[in-house]
Amino acid sequence: MQLGTPQSFSRVLSSMCTEPHPAAREAAERFLATNPGDPGTYETVADLERTVVERLGEIVGLSDPAGYLASGGTEANIQALRLARNRADSTEPNVVVPASAHFSFTKAADVLGLELRVAPLDGYTVSLPAVRELVDEDTVAVVGVAGSTEYGRVDPIPALADAVADASGDPLFHVDAAWGGFVLPFTEHAWSFADAAVDTLTIDPHKMGQAVVPAGGLIARDESLLADLAVDTPYLESTSQITLTGTRSGAGVASAAAALDALWPAGYREQYERSQANAEWLAAELRARGDRVVSPTLPLVAADIGRDAIDAVRAEGWRLSRTEQGEARFVLQPHVTRETLTAFLDELDRVR
Amino acid sequence: MQLGTPQSFSRVLSSMCTEPHPAAREAAERFLATNPGDPGTYETVADLERTVVERLGEIVGLSDPAGYLASGGTEANIQALRLARNRADSTEPNVVVPASAHFSFTKAADVLGLELRVAPLDGYTVSLPAVRELVDEDTVAVVGVAGSTEYGRVDPIPALADAVADASGDPLFHVDAAWGGFVLPFTEHAWSFADAAVDTLTIDPHKMGQAVVPAGGLIARDESLLADLAVDTPYLESTSQITLTGTRSGAGVASAAAALDALWPAGYREQYERSQANAEWLAAELRARGDRVVSPTLPLVAADIGRDAIDAVRAEGWRLSRTEQGEARFVLQPHVTRETLTAFLDELDRVR
Repeated sequence: MQLGTPQSFSRVLSSMCTEPHPAAREAAERFLATNPGDPGTYETVADLERTVVERLGEIVGLSDPAGYLASGGTEANIQALRLARNRADSTEPNVVVPASAHFSFTKAADVLGLELRVAPLDGYTVSLPAVRELVDEDTVAVVGVAGSTEYGRVDPIPALADAVADASGDPLFHVDAAWGGFVLPFTEHAWSFADAAVDTLTIDPHKMGQAVVPAGGLIARDESLLADLAVDTPYLESTSQITLTGTRSGAGVASAAAALDALWPAGYREQYERSQANAEWLAAELRARGDRVVSPTLPLVAADIGRDAIDAVRAEGWRLSRTEQGEARFVLQPHVTRETLTAFLDELDRVR
Repeated sequence: MQLGTPQSFSRVLSSMCTEPHPAAREAAERFLATNPGDPGTYETVADLERTVVERLGEIVGLSDPAGYLASGGTEANIQALRLARNRADSTEPNVVVPASAHFSFTKAADVLGLELRVAPLDGYTVSLPAVRELVDEDTVAVVGVAGSTEYGRVDPIPALADAVADASGDPLFHVDAAWGGFVLPFTEHAWSFADAAVDTLTIDPHKMGQAVVPAGGLIARDESLLADLAVDTPYLESTSQITLTGTRSGAGVASAAAALDALWPAGYREQYERSQANAEWLAAELRARGDRVVSPTLPLVAADIGRDAIDAVRAEGWRLSRTEQGEARFVLQPHVTRETLTAFLDELDRVR
């Protein structure tokens, strides 16, 4: 069969993945035939994973982080809710998530048998009174979003942590920074373990971290939180496994290590500044054309350019998706340059 | 940080992964920056995934297969039980698995809130009377193993299918051929959709299929079985997602496509014959040394070489794991050549 050619990134505007950093790509290629899920056999990559978790700890404000590299943010989010459910003893467990939470929480609730309680938003971030009202003694976890998928907005993480602390049922507090985690350190937002009593956090090297897919990250405040995930592993050289998947990608782990080495912190800071400047430039350009724009507080622009225009630019090969409200979503990943945006705006002007 | 060097495969005897085929490696490298989890954006790799599923259908005896490429056998097994649970309406669902089932079923039962009913073995395969006794109206799935992790044995799949057909509660029948799926087509075993009323089946290209990690496979008899897994996907260009993970590895998909292209069927047959011959040769060599050997019906040898000997060869860098009974496990993956085995036996003779 013909494998064909992978898509170019030159017209990809809505993906949360990107072209990997050259060092990340090189490391992935070298470690393609490794499996950190079998650490007794694949020791080098298992050691590397521990180092990556340490480094991610620096980014998220934890000096002694626990965690592992997951297949992506979905696995990390499922696992955070799974450990929260397993340590609680509710027979009717629920989880409270913002309406802005990624659809992986819907998936997680189905998989884990959790009641999903969706807190409405106040503007683009979660309503605190709504969260306080939804939390009860059967709540095993409360979720905050640090960089929402649709609008790149950050929930009030410290205030959410306070709501969790006041809860009757001892829920865990999980922060989803899958996309935001590699840009938030360079902003004034309060979002991490350093800013609030966070228990678990998702941060994906394969999004703004410029690693290759699959490299998600689940970070926990303390190793003991992960204990409720452990399953015995007969016939491996190791004895138990906390991950959701079994065999895992060493390429993802090695590429995350290489990307962190090359980019943390200066390279990521530069990338954030470049992407944020592009976001603000794009927002201004669209506003100048009369489009309603949701201001980009992180490098993600949503703009009401019209359904017909979205369909028309898609027909020209631009990969552009919509929010639930119908706005176009522009995710300012590293591959989205000023030149790309200029070409897009030219196309937009042509089609409408 | 120093990334170090990935382990060599020259002394890896117990892994179910292997060195990828050169064509699979090349394809993975080309498709590193793709995500079949976002098929609207990454169209080439999404098309490729459909082709791979078609090809896997040929191997497992289905002319119109449904399914997808998972992160591995664990995800595929979890998903098979998840869809079985979701389509049933039991409030106390259970799953019946052989005692020889992979630990991913223990994990799946925890994740999904299923009671795990473990059927004892009769020799090295599941006891049919035990399965019939454990199945009740709350049984949502029965699992058969086609190539067990410890001994490479194949459960009586057609007879298990009959037991499922006789059940009161309409359970699904899932076959775990994660490791065995790429060797069983060249044997006389009855194991696939062609041999029995199987509903879902796990077959992993990244094991004997010689693709890169991560490339597992979940194949279903009919598309409708997967409907109960669907979660809406706002802000993607596509509308719903049946996978457990979200972002997925295009490298795994492309490498599976390339491996299937290069090896199915002649190359896989040759590999099976080579591996099976090596298994039988190793079994004979160990028996000649007085060791008790479990006869390899597939390319997997378990032998009671003694705990001290296992520890001693491990200390020399051999990656060798044990069964729960304490036997050494030799998985005759493509990278395990006659030369490797000769070197191992020399080492074994030296240490004891």
